[in-house]
Amino acid sequence: MTKSELERDLESFRRGEMSADELVARLRAEPFEDLGFAKLDRHREMRQGLSEVVYGAGKTADEIIAIVGRLKTMSGRPVLVTRMDSEKFPKLVAAIPEARYFERARIAAVGEFPEPDARGEIAIVTGGTSDGAVAEEAAVTAEALGNRILRIYDVGVAGIHRLLAHVEELQRASVVIAIAGMEGALATVVGGLVACPVVAVPTSVGYGAAFDGIAALLSMINSCASGVSIVNIDNGFGAAVVASRINHR
Amino acid sequence: MTKSELERDLESFRRGEMSADELVARLRAEPFEDLGFAKLDRHREMRQGLSEVVYGAGKTADEIIAIVGRLKTMSGRPVLVTRMDSEKFPKLVAAIPEARYFERARIAAVGEFPEPDARGEIAIVTGGTSDGAVAEEAAVTAEALGNRILRIYDVGVAGIHRLLAHVEELQRASVVIAIAGMEGALATVVGGLVACPVVAVPTSVGYGAAFDGIAALLSMINSCASGVSIVNIDNGFGAAVVASRINHR
Amino acid sequence: MTKSELERDLESFRRGEMSADELVARLRAEPFEDLGFAKLDRHREMRQGLSEVVYGAGKTADEIIAIVGRLKTMSGRPVLVTRMDSEKFPKLVAAIPEARYFERARIAAVGEFPEPDARGEIAIVTGGTSDGAVAEEAAVTAEALGNRILRIYDVGVAGIHRLLAHVEELQRASVVIAIAGMEGALATVVGGLVACPVVAVPTSVGYGAAFDGIAALLSMINSCASGVSIVNIDNGFGAAVVASRINHR
Amino acid sequence: MTKSELERDLESFRRGEMSADELVARLRAEPFEDLGFAKLDRHREMRQGLSEVVYGAGKTADEIIAIVGRLKTMSGRPVLVTRMDSEKFPKLVAAIPEARYFERARIAAVGEFPEPDARGEIAIVTGGTSDGAVAEEAAVTAEALGNRILRIYDVGVAGIHRLLAHVEELQRASVVIAIAGMEGALATVVGGLVACPVVAVPTSVGYGAAFDGIAALLSMINSCASGVSIVNIDNGFGAAVVASRINHR
Amino acid sequence: MTKSELERDLESFRRGEMSADELVARLRAEPFEDLGFAKLDRHREMRQGLSEVVYGAGKTADEIIAIVGRLKTMSGRPVLVTRMDSEKFPKLVAAIPEARYFERARIAAVGEFPEPDARGEIAIVTGGTSDGAVAEEAAVTAEALGNRILRIYDVGVAGIHRLLAHVEELQRASVVIAIAGMEGALATVVGGLVACPVVAVPTSVGYGAAFDGIAALLSMINSCASGVSIVNIDNGFGAAVVASRINHR
Amino acid sequence: MTKSELERDLESFRRGEMSADELVARLRAEPFEDLGFAKLDRHREMRQGLSEVVYGAGKTADEIIAIVGRLKTMSGRPVLVTRMDSEKFPKLVAAIPEARYFERARIAAVGEFPEPDARGEIAIVTGGTSDGAVAEEAAVTAEALGNRILRIYDVGVAGIHRLLAHVEELQRASVVIAIAGMEGALATVVGGLVACPVVAVPTSVGYGAAFDGIAALLSMINSCASGVSIVNIDNGFGAAVVASRINHR
Amino acid sequence: MTKSELERDLESFRRGEMSADELVARLRAEPFEDLGFAKLDRHREMRQGLSEVVYGAGKTADEIIAIVGRLKTMSGRPVLVTRMDSEKFPKLVAAIPEARYFERARIAAVGEFPEPDARGEIAIVTGGTSDGAVAEEAAVTAEALGNRILRIYDVGVAGIHRLLAHVEELQRASVVIAIAGMEGALATVVGGLVACPVVAVPTSVGYGAAFDGIAALLSMINSCASGVSIVNIDNGFGAAVVASRINHR
Amino acid sequence: MTKSELERDLESFRRGEMSADELVARLRAEPFEDLGFAKLDRHREMRQGLSEVVYGAGKTADEIIAIVGRLKTMSGRPVLVTRMDSEKFPKLVAAIPEARYFERARIAAVGEFPEPDARGEIAIVTGGTSDGAVAEEAAVTAEALGNRILRIYDVGVAGIHRLLAHVEELQRASVVIAIAGMEGALATVVGGLVACPVVAVPTSVGYGAAFDGIAALLSMINSCASGVSIVNIDNGFGAAVVASRINHR
Repeated sequence: MTKSELERDLESFRRGEMSADELVARLRAEPFEDLGFAKLDRHREMRQGLSEVVYGAGKTADEIIAIVGRLKTMSGRPVLVTRMDSEKFPKLVAAIPEARYFERARIAAVGEFPEPDARGEIAIVTGGTSDGAVAEEAAVTAEALGNRILRIYDVGVAGIHRLLAHVEELQRASVVIAIAGMEGALATVVGGLVACPVVAVPTSVGYGAAFDGIAALLSMINSCASGVSIVNIDNGFGAAVVASRINHR
Repeated sequence: MTKSELERDLESFRRGEMSADELVARLRAEPFEDLGFAKLDRHREMRQGLSEVVYGAGKTADEIIAIVGRLKTMSGRPVLVTRMDSEKFPKLVAAIPEARYFERARIAAVGEFPEPDARGEIAIVTGGTSDGAVAEEAAVTAEALGNRILRIYDVGVAGIHRLLAHVEELQRASVVIAIAGMEGALATVVGGLVACPVVAVPTSVGYGAAFDGIAALLSMINSCASGVSIVNIDNGFGAAVVASRINHR
Repeated sequence: MTKSELERDLESFRRGEMSADELVARLRAEPFEDLGFAKLDRHREMRQGLSEVVYGAGKTADEIIAIVGRLKTMSGRPVLVTRMDSEKFPKLVAAIPEARYFERARIAAVGEFPEPDARGEIAIVTGGTSDGAVAEEAAVTAEALGNRILRIYDVGVAGIHRLLAHVEELQRASVVIAIAGMEGALATVVGGLVACPVVAVPTSVGYGAAFDGIAALLSMINSCASGVSIVNIDNGFGAAVVASRINHR
Repeated sequence: MTKSELERDLESFRRGEMSADELVARLRAEPFEDLGFAKLDRHREMRQGLSEVVYGAGKTADEIIAIVGRLKTMSGRPVLVTRMDSEKFPKLVAAIPEARYFERARIAAVGEFPEPDARGEIAIVTGGTSDGAVAEEAAVTAEALGNRILRIYDVGVAGIHRLLAHVEELQRASVVIAIAGMEGALATVVGGLVACPVVAVPTSVGYGAAFDGIAALLSMINSCASGVSIVNIDNGFGAAVVASRINHR
Repeated sequence: MTKSELERDLESFRRGEMSADELVARLRAEPFEDLGFAKLDRHREMRQGLSEVVYGAGKTADEIIAIVGRLKTMSGRPVLVTRMDSEKFPKLVAAIPEARYFERARIAAVGEFPEPDARGEIAIVTGGTSDGAVAEEAAVTAEALGNRILRIYDVGVAGIHRLLAHVEELQRASVVIAIAGMEGALATVVGGLVACPVVAVPTSVGYGAAFDGIAALLSMINSCASGVSIVNIDNGFGAAVVASRINHR
Repeated sequence: MTKSELERDLESFRRGEMSADELVARLRAEPFEDLGFAKLDRHREMRQGLSEVVYGAGKTADEIIAIVGRLKTMSGRPVLVTRMDSEKFPKLVAAIPEARYFERARIAAVGEFPEPDARGEIAIVTGGTSDGAVAEEAAVTAEALGNRILRIYDVGVAGIHRLLAHVEELQRASVVIAIAGMEGALATVVGGLVACPVVAVPTSVGYGAAFDGIAALLSMINSCASGVSIVNIDNGFGAAVVASRINHR
Repeated sequence: MTKSELERDLESFRRGEMSADELVARLRAEPFEDLGFAKLDRHREMRQGLSEVVYGAGKTADEIIAIVGRLKTMSGRPVLVTRMDSEKFPKLVAAIPEARYFERARIAAVGEFPEPDARGEIAIVTGGTSDGAVAEEAAVTAEALGNRILRIYDVGVAGIHRLLAHVEELQRASVVIAIAGMEGALATVVGGLVACPVVAVPTSVGYGAAFDGIAALLSMINSCASGVSIVNIDNGFGAAVVASRINHR
Repeated sequence: MTKSELERDLESFRRGEMSADELVARLRAEPFEDLGFAKLDRHREMRQGLSEVVYGAGKTADEIIAIVGRLKTMSGRPVLVTRMDSEKFPKLVAAIPEARYFERARIAAVGEFPEPDARGEIAIVTGGTSDGAVAEEAAVTAEALGNRILRIYDVGVAGIHRLLAHVEELQRASVVIAIAGMEGALATVVGGLVACPVVAVPTSVGYGAAFDGIAALLSMINSCASGVSIVNIDNGFGAAVVASRINHR
């Protein structure tokens, strides 16, 4: 129910063409979408960028094609498919020729990414090469959401000088995404070097008692550095959304 | 080594009063504080607000008095003592008469809090009354860091209308701190209602299989809402630092 | 030992054709089935609906055919095979032509489902599309047990308005089955909206620290909403049995 | 906003005393309580019995007196205070003379309990004497909610004949609450004996690897008996609410 | 060093053909095998039955053939290969024609099993059909160790009358092996019915929160029945060794 | 219903003084205690030694006195109270003068212990002095159940020669109880030295990652030695019951 | 049995004063202490420094006095009592006047510490002030074992420059003990800065999801730096023993 | 910036060809590599042996060839590729003919191993044959780092005499690597037999409650033997680095 529909209803009621009961019934019928939750609707418009993200894991190529086609029609914005295996892409690109594939990020995208519309820059820092897939998922997502990205990869703290060589860049960033597996110490050291918020992403990289990311998760959540908050294990996408929201403040 | 000391050394070297070896030795002697890490120093100045925070748990009143006295002298900024038991306060206020005590927050403070210097507002939302201590720790910390706070307490999602009554306020906030124990569902519902970053704080409130906050921690880290990141269990202080950094972007 | 057999034995004893020792020996020989546990037998009749359920995982098509054939002969009621892979169905239907297959639910059924014989309705609510298999296992099982089902799928609480649009339907239900993975917050929000019992089913949907359903399980078991009880991870069948028993009160 | 207030507002609007904008603003101002969520309000009335329950742990006697006083005024129904230590009761009864204390249940109550208004009976079964406090919390809560209770205590399955002696009583019950610590096997055995829903409550009774109820929780959630759902460790109150809702179907 | 070798050495020493230093050196050279640990050797003879058991998992058919061949030569006793996949057996039987394969138990055996040489009987009880592989591993092992076995399968406690029908048989047993997955309640109920030792084996049967046998393990280790001890998850072999040692007392 | 009562009833029935319905009703009334489960009763007589054990933790001195008094009257056998704090003993001995207290074992006993009536000996082995309380609980319990005990304490495997000095004694035992905390390696080493059953008891001795006995529990349950089964953490009593049953085979 | 006793026995045997059987019996009687394990004895002498350490937790002052008195007599070396509460010291020093107490380390010592007899130095590094007790336990123990200690405290990696200021000192050390709680990242950063072995000690410092040291333990065991091994949570003593052994290579 | 570059810059500055600001800017530009962290560089040279290790898991044969080729050019030292599947080796050896493959260790090596340059010997002890892969990873790594290795395999403590037969060899070692799965008791027994440092490696060998090495990890970290520190599960490489550093002290 748009605002004009509401005004028309109220007018009908005033003119006696609609009873009070009828009016109340209409108001109740879709109360959240239209009246009480019009704010929700405005909110949903604000997050359009997100609503066009499809979680590709466990979906067939055909399902993905159908969903992407529908989303593309509904909005003029780019559509992302995360966690999509490379072998599904040929079928997707055959159906939707403008589709692109970011291999490392395991993301397929349809539609141009917007120009960066936030003043700051998101720095993405990783501990090792194996964290690259999670980092690229974060990077591509953040770019699709209109952010400038600075990639600082393979600067794990076991060789602290590698990270220290990038201190000035880190300190210029608007927000830092720190991605590491194993003992996850990167988040703490980065947290101590910058004054901006740090979004930490534990990864499932590691073996033995790394327990698929639990060790890094516990390490990061207990970071003795202030200003660090975390997202789920391997959740590069989630970190990018948080960082993008911060960067667009 | 201050900048003027460095310049004096360079001048000495140029005039031949100091050999190249001596100069290099001096540069190496404290390289991070003074030269190579001058940026760290500038950075530290930027976070002065944080460096004056004392973790009070496990410290005696006398130790707290000594540390607060020293910090107060070193900077003109307010000093916070977190996790301080109320019974230590009389001794503290006897020694430092300007000290104030925030009982619910378990925080003692010395020195005036700054005027809010960030444009936005931090909304602090809690699930139940038992989350109040963590919420107040966050609120007082954030105020001391120069933020305006909006408290929305006791709006747990088991009675969803209580939370929904505050949707507009939440949507105006610059960042939301969502605090809940038990099943921690609040973070997810709030995350779905707002477009700003949400910092979630699991609390140790609950019993049985709540496991002192693990249930809420797992719930929040797995939130199906985007834009949510988390800090440690009961870590109201940490959430406030993250939120303040976001709010000061 | 049927009642008439018992009476015949007692008569033989009275007439001296059977000694006291013989009688006691006979009574002891199968005491639970026939005498002491006649109540158990009656009870078993009461739950016939359940005894015809076969857990299909780990059984070959041949084993399933054999068991279903026997069960079908023993009772006039429908036989369900849960957790049955679709590739086993062709063999089953070849052997038992009346067999049907519910693909999403992974259930094969032989025999007509009964007309709903309970007054109320079981509402089945899910958080996301990935919870659909568990939901359908619950739905098909509940239908086979004589219940009317209302499916309300994909109403996860990260977009709370989706769930709220169904409040009236939920409040009409006799019992609600709430199915969600990830952070499992759905159970709590639903629990706060209805006055009937809620049976919560954590699912293994999620990644990272979702730990195959542990996060949702802990979340649901700690729900701050009253009236919520839970069954095992992914146990749509179990939830349906509990809900059907409630609905048939 | 009551229905009559709404009608008055609509009338004002129709008569031109209130503009369309004013009307919409008023409708939006408290939309859930009064318009869109009037159903919630009706619902809340239906659960009044629950809203008068106070969780006493961690509250002072004075806080409890204040809350109970207020709740008593707001409704004519009994008020329960759960998890209340016995040493707080003298102060409570001094302030509110009609207060009673159920020692084993650790529940204080103000106001007469209603006559049982459900047809069936709730059977409460425990494994051992140490489960008594949880059982009584369930029993007193259920009585306050208008249920008839049958107590079958100390029938742990290590001596199965103790439980079997009560089979007929159990089979007459409308719903069974099975309470056990240690290995929690009681829930499974009871679940196999009855055709009604079983609400299982793991207790923290046990030592060593009982892990404060985790062993019993896992045992019960994995019960091979159908028709069993569980609530949190030691949560006698929660089990009673679930059972009462079932019993009032 | 055999006893005769020792005597020869001592004789050499006495005759002066060997110095004291040489004698001590010889005694020290292999002190445990031959002198100090002669008791160990005798002990090893006593457990010959065990030393001929090969853990087949992770070994190739060729490796198994080599080991079995050697063991067979070294002793006259039967050789067991546990956890051996059926597809390795054709190669084994081609090399060692007398080899037999126990399919359900996943055990290959070479050599006749001894006649039962213990007075008592080992009863093996299982909760469900899925526990059969573990049960058969226990049964075949125990038979190979010279025990008489009584199999009582599929008597899970969710239908307690199935177990009670076998009470007399259970009470005649010398030791009972109770095998169950899921909630593992069988061990407790059996423990309450018999006066002999019960060896409980948790199995990895179950799903969801069964956690591959942890639920059953915790349940069994916390059994409220006395006289129950447990072995590792799915360890039918280990249970058989314990039971056989008890039965041979 | 004793056997003579049963015979009297049957006689009444035969003489027509009791109808068939009455007889069946009587048989059903207490079927397990008296008819169907007479074997249970005989069994219970066999385990009298156990039924007179009271778990003292969490019981007041008065409760203990009442229970012990009753048990003493019911049977001529000794009564044990386990886990009883020493400060409760003065009150107990004042009420029941013949009571004795085993301080290390935290066991009070009333009535003479029987002469050892089993041929073999139970060896109790501990890793360190801190395991002494658990060991003495096992030792006193086993003595009360009619076993001869051999105590071999403080022979932890970090100094393997201490244990090896007792090999012959260990090998003479009928069953060994191996008690250790920390890493629990004692059970494995003992298991490799003897041919009799080993009952392992993990203790909560240790700190840090010992996790109150979990480390020892996991270590023992995974023992690479055959013939080892375990009981709960710190459960000296349970180990004694298992060992006594083995020793009385 | 000393070497001279052995020689005397052999001589007796040679002269025919002792039969071969008697000789073998004597050799077997205490074979490990005296013959077969003479090497163990030599070994024990080598570790005398360790055998004079008493674990004070859970021992009374009187027990400690007795043990220390005996140990002091048995060897000329210093005796340490670790984990000893300060309130027990007055009684100890009254009985043994030369006793000293290291308050932060919670260690009492009797006897002079040896001069450092290892070439290198053990650096002890901590993350925060709260790690001090563990660090001092390590430091005092290592000094008692004859090592030179370099204390570098409060250099947690959240302020990396604090640690970097000590790089040269760290690189001169023979072995580094890295002690940290919370996220335990210190071990990894230190491990990347030095070429000597690093012994990492997780501490129970932290709150929330630190889980009494588990987070730090997992972090350290998964360190991406090579050359790091760990000891138990809070085990300063154990780290000192490992470091001392390395330093005495 | 090399030392000569630094000297040239300083000379330029002295001659006025470079301003003080320029000089400081240059010094800051790469301060760690060249000035402040020259010590880091020297350190890196010291660990060259390590920097040539490639973690092969998850890398393609082509990636490995590229990395090995580059590393080989950069230094004259051997290059190791750990965790490399055997099927990748043919491609590697085709590209780099001098490559060798250690099958059990899953390590490929290019370049001659250095002569042992440490005085002592590293003893590698394993519990069972299944620990062999981890042991060989440790052995080959340690050899590549210039150590002499003593392999003592399959001496698990369930047959303690197997281990005791090697006591003298163990006691001659400079450092012992103790490798075991299941209950991991080997580390403790070895720790009690030697005076040198013991590096314990838990392996994922085992089943049931071994939990992929957690049981062994907990066992080893809680070892009651002094002088034992541990590395990650299955981390033979890490153990070798620690041991080599100790051996090269």
